[in-house]
Order: sequence, then C-alpha cells, then structure tokens
Amino acid sequence: MTERGFLFTVEGIDGGGKTTHAILLESYLKSKGREVIRTREPGDYNLASSVIRKLILSPEYAGQIPPQAELCLFAASRAIHVDTLIRPALSKGIDVITDRFADSTFAYQGIGRGMPLETILLLNMIVTNGLTPDLTIFIDTEESIAEARTATEEFGLKDRIESEETKFHKRVNEGYRALALMYPQRIKRIVYKSDNIEAMQREIISYVDPLINQ
Amino acid sequence: MTERGFLFTVEGIDGGGKTTHAILLESYLKSKGREVIRTREPGDYNLASSVIRKLILSPEYAGQIPPQAELCLFAASRAIHVDTLIRPALSKGIDVITDRFADSTFAYQGIGRGMPLETILLLNMIVTNGLTPDLTIFIDTEESIAEARTATEEFGLKDRIESEETKFHKRVNEGYRALALMYPQRIKRIVYKSDNIEAMQREIISYVDPLINQ
Repeated sequence: MTERGFLFTVEGIDGGGKTTHAILLESYLKSKGREVIRTREPGDYNLASSVIRKLILSPEYAGQIPPQAELCLFAASRAIHVDTLIRPALSKGIDVITDRFADSTFAYQGIGRGMPLETILLLNMIVTNGLTPDLTIFIDTEESIAEARTATEEFGLKDRIESEETKFHKRVNEGYRALALMYPQRIKRIVYKSDNIEAMQREIISYVDPLINQ
Repeated sequence: MTERGFLFTVEGIDGGGKTTHAILLESYLKSKGREVIRTREPGDYNLASSVIRKLILSPEYAGQIPPQAELCLFAASRAIHVDTLIRPALSKGIDVITDRFADSTFAYQGIGRGMPLETILLLNMIVTNGLTPDLTIFIDTEESIAEARTATEEFGLKDRIESEETKFHKRVNEGYRALALMYPQRIKRIVYKSDNIEAMQREIISYVDPLINQ
C-alpha cells in the first residue's frame, strides 16, 4: 500500500516570499527522494478553474463582484483544486505544496472583509471535504515591506486584491496571526527577514523534517 | 417614501412552463399599473455573472465542476443577482419576478445532489443577505412530461443540468414538494396542466392578488 503524501500550505500576504519558499521547499523534499507537486490558489487545475481565477483576479470585473460572491468563487476554485489535483496526488503518495489554501479565505474574506467566520469555516469544510494541511507555513511580513515589494516591476501589474489598501492587508495579517494561535500544531509562523532567506528556509525545514522522518 | 416592491420567484424543474408563467405574471402586474422587472438565475446581471452562468451551464465544462464547486458557483451568481439587480429594484418600489432563486439550490444541489441542507440554507442566507421572496410559485410537473417537453426543438440543446437523468429530476421535484410543506405561507404549489395554462394562471393570480391589494 502506498503511503499518503503530505499536504503543505504556504500562507501570508503577497510580497513576503511565499512563492520563493514554496519553490525551496519543493527542492528540499525532492532532495529527500520524495515526489512533489507545487500548486497555488486560485489556480488553473482545469479550464473551469482558469475561468474562475480570472473572475477573481482580473481588474476587468472590478466593482462587479460583491464580497459574498468573491467568497463563493474562491470556494468553487478550492473545490476543483481538492477534487482534481490535491486528493488524487496525496492518495498516490505524492506531496502537495500549495501557495494559499483554506486559511487564506479565513484571513482575507473573514477577517479582511468581515464575512461571518462560522460561514467561512463551514464553507471551507465543505469544499475541502474535511481535508486539512499537515503543515502550514505562515510567512508574517510587515504590510509596508510587503507592499514595497509588490510595487516592484518583478511583480507586474497589481491584481484586484493586491490593489487593496494597507489597512486591509494589516487586518489580513492579524487574521493569520489569530489562526496561528488557534492551530499552533499545524500552523508555523515564520517572520519575514528581507536579508536572510536562508535563515527562513532553515526554520521552515525544522518543521518539515519531523513530519517526513516520522 | 416609496413602498418596497414585491419579490416573486417561480420554481420547479424545467419543462413545466416556468418562463411562460413568469411572462404572464409580468403582464398581469403591469396591467395593474405596477412596475416590474423579470429576471432569472443563473443570469446576466453584469459581465462577471455572465461568465459564471456559462461555467454552470455550458457542456464545455462537463466533468470539470464537482458538486461542491457547482453549489458555490450558483451562490456566487445569486450574490451578484441580489446585490446588482434585486435589492436596488425592490427599494425603488419595482416588483421583481425571478425564474429560479434560493429554493432551486435547496432542490437541485441539496435534495438532487445530496449536499448537506444546513450548508445550503446557510449559504443561501449569506448570499441573499436574508432576502426572502414574498411569494414563490412552484410549478409541479411530472418528470416524464417535463422531459418530453424539454426534448422538443423549441428548447434547443440541453444544458449540462437538463441532461441529468429522470431519477435526478424526480428527486428535485420531491425536494420542491418538501419545501412547499415547510413554507406553506410563502410557497404555493401549482400542478402542471398541459391543456390548461389559463387555469394555472388563474390559480397563480389568486395568490398574487391578496399581496398586491394589501
């Protein structure tokens, strides 16, 4: 019987190096002989999910999507993600690293936009069918640093959600910190250090090792 | 101060004449000097909702949208419907007739596809912000009659949901009947009579009159 793969999620506001650390984690797991898929939300798992991703992010739809609808679109995308990509991979023994998952909805739509938290937790449970990450890396980046970084050319044009004001990203960060307090076993908070990506990675690996060496 | 308009919803499986009766109701209300908007779900309230409608109905996405994602897409569409069209109209004193609304999600995704009913009721409450129809007309059509009717050329190609099997439509009908029992004041069940649209309309009007003559 194949062992089930691990589900790793990387969370936090944009500009803290989520993608970099997801890539570094992917390399690390592969160096340990593990099979790994790296993915993101909202993503392109099939044609339908690509359309949903565009609905959520494209400035073309600015002002057309009320908060309740945004919540539902993220949930729809996550349901496709779990069904099409994550569960099949895990059951084949492949590890999955996803840049954003259910905690993003709690932090952004729940704390950030003030949607009822019970609803969000319930909706997450439905669309994930109860699937919970084995380890969540929350990169805690000060809003001003994150915003300076997403303003650089490397990041390209800001999408609809990146264009929100500083106050919003501050609330989202507080949402993540609250989650990290609520689920200390699963969620590990890594403080962003602009000059020391290696130190951050070592900290991340210190949480990953006990899991894969079980 | 303007009086608030009434929200009428028409429900039931396709092929029972929902659209016909929505049109007849629209004419009747206008003949009484009322301002009326007729709409439908999932609909085209803005560009984003047109894209969601296509995701839900187009055979192009068959097999790509698991039940949980379908539920969320209908909910997203409804949130835009309420926010963009229904609430603004009602507050201006305009009546709204919508071909399908929250009860459809209960009957199709809840009873039809077996999603948890608590979730559906909660999700409906969130996306409608608690808005409830003043009157719901449920057209109860035997599945075989409805299917024979939707197979005619007039209906065009079947969409992804119309192509479901008879057993599914039977469950959906049972879902609607359960709702009519649960909300007898709001939901009026009209039995489909193929040879007597006028009798059906008279019955519908008998429920509409007390409301508009208050």
